[in-house]
Amino acid sequence: MMDLTDLFATRAGRMKASEIRELLKLLDQPDIISFAGGIPDPSLFPHEAFRQAYADVLGGPDANAALQYQVSEGYRPLRRWIAREMGRIGIPCDENNIFITSGSQQGLDYLGKLFLSPGDTALVTWPTYLGALQAFNAYEPRYDRLMPAGGNMTPDAYRQAASETGGAVKFAYLVPDFANPSGETLTLAQREAVLDLAEELGIAIIEDAAYAALRYSGEGVPPIAALDALRSGGIDQGRTIYCGSFSKILAPGLRVGWICAPRPMIEKLVLTKQASDLHSPSINQMVVHHVAEATYGAQVERTRTAYHARRDALLEALEHHMPKGVSWTKPDGGMFVWVTLPEGMDAVELLAHSVAEARVAFVPGSAFHADGGGRNTLRLSFTLADERAVTEGIPRLADLIRRSLPA
Amino acid sequence: MMDLTDLFATRAGRMKASEIRELLKLLDQPDIISFAGGIPDPSLFPHEAFRQAYADVLGGPDANAALQYQVSEGYRPLRRWIAREMGRIGIPCDENNIFITSGSQQGLDYLGKLFLSPGDTALVTWPTYLGALQAFNAYEPRYDRLMPAGGNMTPDAYRQAASETGGAVKFAYLVPDFANPSGETLTLAQREAVLDLAEELGIAIIEDAAYAALRYSGEGVPPIAALDALRSGGIDQGRTIYCGSFSKILAPGLRVGWICAPRPMIEKLVLTKQASDLHSPSINQMVVHHVAEATYGAQVERTRTAYHARRDALLEALEHHMPKGVSWTKPDGGMFVWVTLPEGMDAVELLAHSVAEARVAFVPGSAFHADGGGRNTLRLSFTLADERAVTEGIPRLADLIRRSLPA
Repeated sequence: MMDLTDLFATRAGRMKASEIRELLKLLDQPDIISFAGGIPDPSLFPHEAFRQAYADVLGGPDANAALQYQVSEGYRPLRRWIAREMGRIGIPCDENNIFITSGSQQGLDYLGKLFLSPGDTALVTWPTYLGALQAFNAYEPRYDRLMPAGGNMTPDAYRQAASETGGAVKFAYLVPDFANPSGETLTLAQREAVLDLAEELGIAIIEDAAYAALRYSGEGVPPIAALDALRSGGIDQGRTIYCGSFSKILAPGLRVGWICAPRPMIEKLVLTKQASDLHSPSINQMVVHHVAEATYGAQVERTRTAYHARRDALLEALEHHMPKGVSWTKPDGGMFVWVTLPEGMDAVELLAHSVAEARVAFVPGSAFHADGGGRNTLRLSFTLADERAVTEGIPRLADLIRRSLPA
Repeated sequence: MMDLTDLFATRAGRMKASEIRELLKLLDQPDIISFAGGIPDPSLFPHEAFRQAYADVLGGPDANAALQYQVSEGYRPLRRWIAREMGRIGIPCDENNIFITSGSQQGLDYLGKLFLSPGDTALVTWPTYLGALQAFNAYEPRYDRLMPAGGNMTPDAYRQAASETGGAVKFAYLVPDFANPSGETLTLAQREAVLDLAEELGIAIIEDAAYAALRYSGEGVPPIAALDALRSGGIDQGRTIYCGSFSKILAPGLRVGWICAPRPMIEKLVLTKQASDLHSPSINQMVVHHVAEATYGAQVERTRTAYHARRDALLEALEHHMPKGVSWTKPDGGMFVWVTLPEGMDAVELLAHSVAEARVAFVPGSAFHADGGGRNTLRLSFTLADERAVTEGIPRLADLIRRSLPA
């Protein structure tokens, strides 16, 4: 999302305000090649479909409804469309399992509000999505580390650790497909293991599926919510809360996302929304419904094709230019490649040099760690990486890293 | 706002779910004359201006920005427009004092989140806006009674009472112009007295100005924020947080409101929004800017003219038909008339009869009381009250009240 600004907000305690201002000033220049912002390429937005949909909605019989207040759970035809889409990816549900949010960020905020009291524990991966940490932080949780690839503590150990701050483990949050920031995807076995752990702990799973539609290679793996519904005998008996978004496939500027969850959870979310902003904009929900009906499948294909090529170009450039000792993930989809520098290197320091000397920007990895670790990691976004960015930016960054390597 | 649904949500503890369902079913019929919903008349929305603005924005050079992520504080040209409008009504400020919210409800939610810990005290009038109570309730405050017309406790007594639940008085919330639900407007002296009290308590004032532009008679009174800025030497030195809305003048369905406040408060709100939903929809902010530039003044006039006539018709019908012992406010603006029945009558019981027999709906007043009082009061909204509603609905309601009067 708007990660760079987020980053500086998060790091405000560790960097001097003057340094932040200086860096932001440096970044606001056209000759900077940026792999930093986790935002989609606006040239891929379906501009014409949006223009048509706003005109149709405001020129049609639903014009009054588009401009008037709306029910808190959201526009029913859009919820029906989403329920069908959920069914298509293996999560059998109906519109009563769907709740419209103002972007999936709002879903994370509401879930934090509903689940977390100060001192409660949220299980997250190290690293994890920065926006999730920001949303949850408002409710003052403690974080413990989820290791889906192996290394989890026992349920009792998680419980014991949680009780030491006077709370309990409330949920596990994760991005199972092409994670922000790591680019990694959980295997079927890893998803089943997360479900096992959640079952033993008696906690909810928050499945952040922001990038799930953006697969470029490899075989699809079922959503955790689908596996859960199979085990539990249906979505209403499950523990998984699936957060979806139109931001990466259609456009983020309308702020339309959704939560697909067991009905009792939907009812709590509706009351939360009623008190917090009444409802997401009526007109945008109706327009997203129009555009999704008209072009969702085509948009998925178009976006995949573009980002697939950019991912390949970035991976090739990294392979070709990066010095020994630097490694990176090879994501099957999404928007990000996660780079690990040799131990002892500091990506925050590197960023300052990189902006000043190489004119290349990225997000240092420590921002994504609940414990402030990961200082030798960084995130590269390839969604806006055109040919010049890759052919000029990566060699310049690689060269700087080479010169910065520990002796 | 969507008060009727809100009402039933709020009263869920006191009414049986089956009764609520029954009542809602009864209300969902075309022959019910409703004075219940606190919503604007959609036939007054500037449909053509909205259609044009969406087409212009999506067909112009800002189309990408309209569909892309946006900064959390909001679209700068809209913030500039609002700052000028604030200056026009006596609140000197610039765009750095303006923060865009997803409707003014979101402003109330964020202010509750920033100010209130469980057990803290919020000062509110009895009755007050239901949506404010819902927003604040999430943060588990205690309420104490603010009596701007006289009868306030001493600052020490407020402080003492607040400390008994382990918290402190954090703010005073009020709707000084044509309040929801009472229709009442605070005099200049009453506003100054609220400022005095807030100063002595060292607390913030939340000025909810949702209806402020809708004056039909009487002389305008300066906003509390304007009086505060005069006293304090400028908005940044003041304690007043002004919540504005486009919902009543342009349309609620885009969910665009604002907060005008001292800069340090704006900075906290921006961080809150970043964590909660990133930003309000980019496209809607740009469209509201276009429509406000094109037609705000004309819309204010058009809306005032229509509601002015409806207020007059409602007041005349009440005068003509209501039995002795029933009294009501004569609002100089806004959307609501507040009716007081003789002591001992219960407006919730009356509503059930009214819907079943008279086919007339309204909102019982107890819903607006933080202490559940006001059982003999009710709210009538006149924004959707056409001639038939007034000439048929009020006599039917008056007749029912006459038959229900205590012997």
